[in-house]
Amino acid sequence: MAKMNKKKNQKNFGHSNVKTMVEDVLKCKWSLTVLELLNQGFNRPGAMVRQTPGLTTKVLNERLRKLQQYGILNKQVYPETPPRVEYNLTEFGERFGKILDAIEQLQAELDA
Amino acid sequence: MAKMNKKKNQKNFGHSNVKTMVEDVLKCKWSLTVLELLNQGFNRPGAMVRQTPGLTTKVLNERLRKLQQYGILNKQVYPETPPRVEYNLTEFGERFGKILDAIEQLQAELDA
Repeated sequence: MAKMNKKKNQKNFGHSNVKTMVEDVLKCKWSLTVLELLNQGFNRPGAMVRQTPGLTTKVLNERLRKLQQYGILNKQVYPETPPRVEYNLTEFGERFGKILDAIEQLQAELDA
Repeated sequence: MAKMNKKKNQKNFGHSNVKTMVEDVLKCKWSLTVLELLNQGFNRPGAMVRQTPGLTTKVLNERLRKLQQYGILNKQVYPETPPRVEYNLTEFGERFGKILDAIEQLQAELDA
């Protein structure tokens, strides 16, 4: 798994671009929810689902996979019994999240 | 015209939202061009068209109107002969532009 995580940390998503990612993530309620959950410290899939009414494991896994492909999230698997899985924002994901935050903040001020 | 400009400065675009605007502007090459031209100090429509191969007056006017409706741009008409028209970023537009800049900067670093 260490190998896989290293791969995800690299810039291996040259096929995509930041604009497309922003458009895509903004349009997807559940992707935003996942980023919000991570901000709140919920980084295990089970805890994310329990925390979020309406979010199914299937949908969560799809979003986690996509955010990983975008280089926004890192997956860590700890070889315990049972295996523990955690997701965290990459350095890129932190900065990506700040852009989304700026958008939300501007919206909040407009609505105020 | 002073009255019109005052109206544009107000938060009179509650029908829209920042996410939609970001998605929309990111998708529109010419909207990005207009914002870039303003950053470079080209704020008169004639100068914008002269500066940009492929940009027609019709398309420019559409984009200027949309960006105005979004509250991103201000239109100033000076009652000279012939009338002088200038566009400038509103305070909201400045902040909106910074979000787009952050996206472009992140992209540039990915591409580096």
